[in-house]
Amino acid sequence: MFILTQKISQIVGGLFISDADLIVDKILKKSLELHQIELSAPEAVEIRRKAVEKMTGATLDGLRAYVIDAESSSRRNIENMIGAVQVPVGVAGPLKVSGEYADGEFLVPLATTEGALVASVNRGCKAITAAGGTSVRIFNDEMTRAPVFAVEDVREAQNVVAWVKQPENFVKLQRATKETTTHGELLRVDPYVVADNVFLRFAFDTKDALGMNMVTIATDRLADVIVEELNIRLVALSGNLCIDKKPAAINLIEGRGKNVVAETSIPRSIIEQELKTTPEGMCDVHYRKNVLGSIKAASLGFNAHAANVVAAIFIATGQDAAHVVEASTAITSLSLRGEELYASVSIPSLLVGTVGGGTTVKTQKECLSIMGVAGGGEPPGAHARKFAEIVCSAVLAGEINLIAALAARHLARAHAALGR
Amino acid sequence: MFILTQKISQIVGGLFISDADLIVDKILKKSLELHQIELSAPEAVEIRRKAVEKMTGATLDGLRAYVIDAESSSRRNIENMIGAVQVPVGVAGPLKVSGEYADGEFLVPLATTEGALVASVNRGCKAITAAGGTSVRIFNDEMTRAPVFAVEDVREAQNVVAWVKQPENFVKLQRATKETTTHGELLRVDPYVVADNVFLRFAFDTKDALGMNMVTIATDRLADVIVEELNIRLVALSGNLCIDKKPAAINLIEGRGKNVVAETSIPRSIIEQELKTTPEGMCDVHYRKNVLGSIKAASLGFNAHAANVVAAIFIATGQDAAHVVEASTAITSLSLRGEELYASVSIPSLLVGTVGGGTTVKTQKECLSIMGVAGGGEPPGAHARKFAEIVCSAVLAGEINLIAALAARHLARAHAALGR
Amino acid sequence: MFILTQKISQIVGGLFISDADLIVDKILKKSLELHQIELSAPEAVEIRRKAVEKMTGATLDGLRAYVIDAESSSRRNIENMIGAVQVPVGVAGPLKVSGEYADGEFLVPLATTEGALVASVNRGCKAITAAGGTSVRIFNDEMTRAPVFAVEDVREAQNVVAWVKQPENFVKLQRATKETTTHGELLRVDPYVVADNVFLRFAFDTKDALGMNMVTIATDRLADVIVEELNIRLVALSGNLCIDKKPAAINLIEGRGKNVVAETSIPRSIIEQELKTTPEGMCDVHYRKNVLGSIKAASLGFNAHAANVVAAIFIATGQDAAHVVEASTAITSLSLRGEELYASVSIPSLLVGTVGGGTTVKTQKECLSIMGVAGGGEPPGAHARKFAEIVCSAVLAGEINLIAALAARHLARAHAALGR
Amino acid sequence: MFILTQKISQIVGGLFISDADLIVDKILKKSLELHQIELSAPEAVEIRRKAVEKMTGATLDGLRAYVIDAESSSRRNIENMIGAVQVPVGVAGPLKVSGEYADGEFLVPLATTEGALVASVNRGCKAITAAGGTSVRIFNDEMTRAPVFAVEDVREAQNVVAWVKQPENFVKLQRATKETTTHGELLRVDPYVVADNVFLRFAFDTKDALGMNMVTIATDRLADVIVEELNIRLVALSGNLCIDKKPAAINLIEGRGKNVVAETSIPRSIIEQELKTTPEGMCDVHYRKNVLGSIKAASLGFNAHAANVVAAIFIATGQDAAHVVEASTAITSLSLRGEELYASVSIPSLLVGTVGGGTTVKTQKECLSIMGVAGGGEPPGAHARKFAEIVCSAVLAGEINLIAALAARHLARAHAALGR
Repeated sequence: MFILTQKISQIVGGLFISDADLIVDKILKKSLELHQIELSAPEAVEIRRKAVEKMTGATLDGLRAYVIDAESSSRRNIENMIGAVQVPVGVAGPLKVSGEYADGEFLVPLATTEGALVASVNRGCKAITAAGGTSVRIFNDEMTRAPVFAVEDVREAQNVVAWVKQPENFVKLQRATKETTTHGELLRVDPYVVADNVFLRFAFDTKDALGMNMVTIATDRLADVIVEELNIRLVALSGNLCIDKKPAAINLIEGRGKNVVAETSIPRSIIEQELKTTPEGMCDVHYRKNVLGSIKAASLGFNAHAANVVAAIFIATGQDAAHVVEASTAITSLSLRGEELYASVSIPSLLVGTVGGGTTVKTQKECLSIMGVAGGGEPPGAHARKFAEIVCSAVLAGEINLIAALAARHLARAHAALGR
Repeated sequence: MFILTQKISQIVGGLFISDADLIVDKILKKSLELHQIELSAPEAVEIRRKAVEKMTGATLDGLRAYVIDAESSSRRNIENMIGAVQVPVGVAGPLKVSGEYADGEFLVPLATTEGALVASVNRGCKAITAAGGTSVRIFNDEMTRAPVFAVEDVREAQNVVAWVKQPENFVKLQRATKETTTHGELLRVDPYVVADNVFLRFAFDTKDALGMNMVTIATDRLADVIVEELNIRLVALSGNLCIDKKPAAINLIEGRGKNVVAETSIPRSIIEQELKTTPEGMCDVHYRKNVLGSIKAASLGFNAHAANVVAAIFIATGQDAAHVVEASTAITSLSLRGEELYASVSIPSLLVGTVGGGTTVKTQKECLSIMGVAGGGEPPGAHARKFAEIVCSAVLAGEINLIAALAARHLARAHAALGR
Repeated sequence: MFILTQKISQIVGGLFISDADLIVDKILKKSLELHQIELSAPEAVEIRRKAVEKMTGATLDGLRAYVIDAESSSRRNIENMIGAVQVPVGVAGPLKVSGEYADGEFLVPLATTEGALVASVNRGCKAITAAGGTSVRIFNDEMTRAPVFAVEDVREAQNVVAWVKQPENFVKLQRATKETTTHGELLRVDPYVVADNVFLRFAFDTKDALGMNMVTIATDRLADVIVEELNIRLVALSGNLCIDKKPAAINLIEGRGKNVVAETSIPRSIIEQELKTTPEGMCDVHYRKNVLGSIKAASLGFNAHAANVVAAIFIATGQDAAHVVEASTAITSLSLRGEELYASVSIPSLLVGTVGGGTTVKTQKECLSIMGVAGGGEPPGAHARKFAEIVCSAVLAGEINLIAALAARHLARAHAALGR
Repeated sequence: MFILTQKISQIVGGLFISDADLIVDKILKKSLELHQIELSAPEAVEIRRKAVEKMTGATLDGLRAYVIDAESSSRRNIENMIGAVQVPVGVAGPLKVSGEYADGEFLVPLATTEGALVASVNRGCKAITAAGGTSVRIFNDEMTRAPVFAVEDVREAQNVVAWVKQPENFVKLQRATKETTTHGELLRVDPYVVADNVFLRFAFDTKDALGMNMVTIATDRLADVIVEELNIRLVALSGNLCIDKKPAAINLIEGRGKNVVAETSIPRSIIEQELKTTPEGMCDVHYRKNVLGSIKAASLGFNAHAANVVAAIFIATGQDAAHVVEASTAITSLSLRGEELYASVSIPSLLVGTVGGGTTVKTQKECLSIMGVAGGGEPPGAHARKFAEIVCSAVLAGEINLIAALAARHLARAHAALGR
């Protein structure tokens, strides 16, 4: 940290303070825009921050105190950077996970400002781990992008659908995909017709990357092929049938990213000791709240607070935080199996990656390394899958705890004690 | 930052290094749990971080370099704190907003690791501001919490509903609310019956606070009143009809938090110059993608990427990131008005606050102060409402830019240039 | 029937056959349209039927054999009438119902061509009645119509909402309603804003009538008042927020027509003897099929086959068959209560009437009279409510039987034996 | 009809009146149940009707006056038959349709008691036919049935999914299907996992039959194969992922039965003359009502009144009236193409058949014959597909007329004149 503080001083010093002020001045006079500063990233950050302070009267010395690499972030993660916000990170666990990729006990980093969340997941982890851990499997693993094309009429729509269904054309599309990416692989194309539009939902294997950009670039190429072959008009590279960052049944049903199910079976004794309630009490809360309440709310999410856990892990590990939307459609299920509580969480659209994007930022990468999933896996895809198994298990921990807490009517008291 | 580094050294030093190591050792041997460290918060953070490093082999020196107040965060925001993750912040704007609370030009801080997002909002801001800015209004402002009660049969359900609808009983509930909060105010109770359950959806005015904890605590008290008066069983303080952090029609229809609509009208010339496309092209993309695509996806969100903008602002300003889920149901609407493009975004469930929770964290508070909305407003509620007006306007900026970019088929290229 | 046949012959005879042929000829030559025949209704029906036979080569002597009043139906129910289709009617029951309006044992008429349906409801009735019958209550009773108005901007939208919320303006609207209907009564107005539109959802008490036309006519008048007072543009008398005959969450959540819940509690012995299965088996089927299956299908209906029962009763009794859509969102719930199976059906949008529309047709009126609900009740509304209580109870009977049959894996065999 | 009346008298006479009365008496004394009458069907109908009259005090002479074949209906369509209800039938058209199966002008029979409906469709037909008719295509044609199986854990779920995806196992399932049906053909199996359940969505080609029973029987056989091969437990033959008669996104997205799109393009002059409005006015109503209104209602149906038209055709032609639910999710789309209005209706789940079930009833068969689609087609499936093309086109006619009427604010007046 000392080194950083020094570096910034040196750099800004290197400009001569008057130079920096001059640029700030230009910004204030609107003769220069924030993104037009042609300096090294740390210098530009400093100048922008100063300009923003002057323009708004705010004091931003906290934002300034970052240790992440401004150069790298300015290239990959952000524009008009003025610093970094710091989100406190806590750990829950150990959580025993038995998946195909994750096998062992894991600590789960959670970045959140919502008091009681880490404690909640932690207590769930304790109960689960005491009971032998979670079992978890991934049932699909596909990243989708669905451009929309305008057609003249239903006849043309029919032609497009027929063309896409021809195996030889699919091979053509696979080949075109390979021109744009070495990692990504086209798995399927599903055509959907609405009015005078054909939506082609392309599904790709993107290995350890979330793959949003990979599939967007590949789809751009595929759209070219389609337009050329079929002489139809591309309306938009994303036609909202992908569908990205909007809650939607298509992702709940067909999945997007990882479709994961985690389960555990907890004996009555552990529920009574660790969670201070009973399996019956938890099933009752689950059915009336998660099932009947969500039904009456006409919700696409049938869980207690999956989004909380996902959001906290996503922010800690540099995932795209807007993908919390997809994960929030998780389906929690509780039932009695003799003297045990069988509990599971099904997340049909868990969108995670361990390479690219925010996962390259220093602190986020560190959080991934806590779970042993930083960077690319071996074989490719193994890290992202391992990570997905841990996330789904952690969500299950959060569910079990909150349902138990509600059953024991502890919620309000917990918040009163730990919260704001 | 220097001061902080020093402080940590002193503190840890104060323990004698051997003491710290001893505690770490106990954790590794599982004779002590992470949350059982009885030291000052910064000391405990250091020890936990070390323990996590030892347990996982990870190096976490980035997480350690925080400037936020560990003492305060450990009390309000997080448990088992091991440090902080740093999310780069960029600014978009200025964005001219004309609301009832926000009036003027604003810079919007966005914390994200998704390249191209800030640039996207920024370009939208430029077009909107050049066109005279947004107009924005809040149509409802209510925080809800809906406990679920079990009843014996439909007759009892009928009694509960009748009791709740009696004006004198509502007064009783308002009075009970006041026992738990000075700021919060009970506005309405809506009863819903499903099978042998009655859900009571309480709606509160929570002023500048998001109010989740405020309404949970108040509802705990109200549940006591109900149970006592009607002799029914409380199943759960939250019955998922609130509904929190799950995508659901009830919030889309009836709203939760702020129900905001922002609009703007952009002349053809600005669209051509700034956005390199036409009003007709944008309407075409909007209708086929945001409308028909979302319909076919059976989505509850009819927008291009509202969640992106909301997530980035929420993380920057210490909002509850899981509430991105609610905001993702935004409805974007584009239409031609003569030679102008009329564009609007309706967000029925925008959940924001400027006091409490993550808004008290140093860097997050700084981001709020960039928009002049840190802390409580005058009159109470004015800051949260001003903030909501700015957020909705910024989402509109993001929508306009992305739709324009798709219309101009710039998406893939933008990602290729700015993204991963 | 003999009388009818004779009457037709006489009438057509009265024209002189050659006259009838002449008209048919004109229709075939397209110099006369089907709706332009200026004769008595039965004559016109005959001529149209003949024309259709000639135009299509079909023989329609079954359609001709009707006993309903062509004159009345041509005035109220149908245009271009060519006869009547005959739907076989069976009865299920007796079904013991204990509601606020229906109290006793009822036979339920079902018009269907789907083999096994009547038998299914019948078996359910038997089990329920043996167990003491259903308890049933109506929680809301409101018919809605929601016109959409275009506004200039958010400010105007705010004005409209404010105007509507003023108590004195609501009185104005109630008064205007009274100008158009003696039976109907305006209960509430709920404003919803989306983009540059305000939807006003008017809710009416329509007594024994379904009330679609009553509320449409009233809303036409109310729209005039709104337009005059606020100088905004009416876009459409129905803005799809009513919402009529489309599956939608707003009706599931807030209800439309009658919001009814029926329940029963069946001892294990009856389930074993009558239904050849166990309470546990039925709960298992319910949870995995009605709950998890419907969740994964992203359904708005959480039942086994409510629509079947509703459709059959609706056709038998002259209801609007398209309103089966609303009823199909029924929520079935099963749970164990000691040695009893507690079962309920919640139908938030049951749209029924006993006066007007199809209820005036001879055979349909007869079916209503089987349940003692033909025509207006005393007090007004009592018949429609009694009817709603019976329908909801009959749906419960159908649910119990099908779930039991599935649990006993009888479904396929029942179809093989009774079906096509 | 004369013959029928006579026949009934003879039959009942044949019993000696006293015999009939004796049986009625037994029913009233509950020593005999309605379904236990061991006589010919017409006799049993008479006796049941009499018994119901005595039990309820109702007079049912209209129900008695049927011409359909009681013997056949009692075998296939109904149990406990007491007669038939008569629904008036009107015709709309001619409607010019240009599909792959339907090609020419068609009269469309509509059985309804809702005044104005036939007139509405008729006016739409007129405008469309004047403009050259509809174009229509079927994009999928699959009947589905999805049993649900309980599994022990996620590992077993994974095994089931893997087994199902093996091509050789699919061949096994196809072979098993053939053992139960000569017409039906297994096309696909899609596995879905939720918690400890695997749903297998089987899709069949059922040719001219709706095929509900065919696929239920086939699925019963397939379930046996699965259970035997994989040793898992069948919970229910239908696991609500089919999904039948419940509004659900899976059918909207993936389709069930026929997935049909019909379109037309109407010149401004025809809209002005026939529909008394403008293309712009209709697009405005469409966007604000069908799109924004349905969005805000959180509807799965984006149309004006598709269910009305479908219900009336379904009742006229002996379809399963409860399948109106699926069709109600139709997506209407209107847009300007130069001086023409382009209009389309997409119905992803149109469930129709021309053989079996209610299509065999005399009057219903007659209605099918009006469109030339009674009985099996050549090649098999051709009649059901032709019928689907006509239905979708008729829905389009209804949409165009209602949207135009709303645009011209004629709705209330039309109802006042034609309705109740």
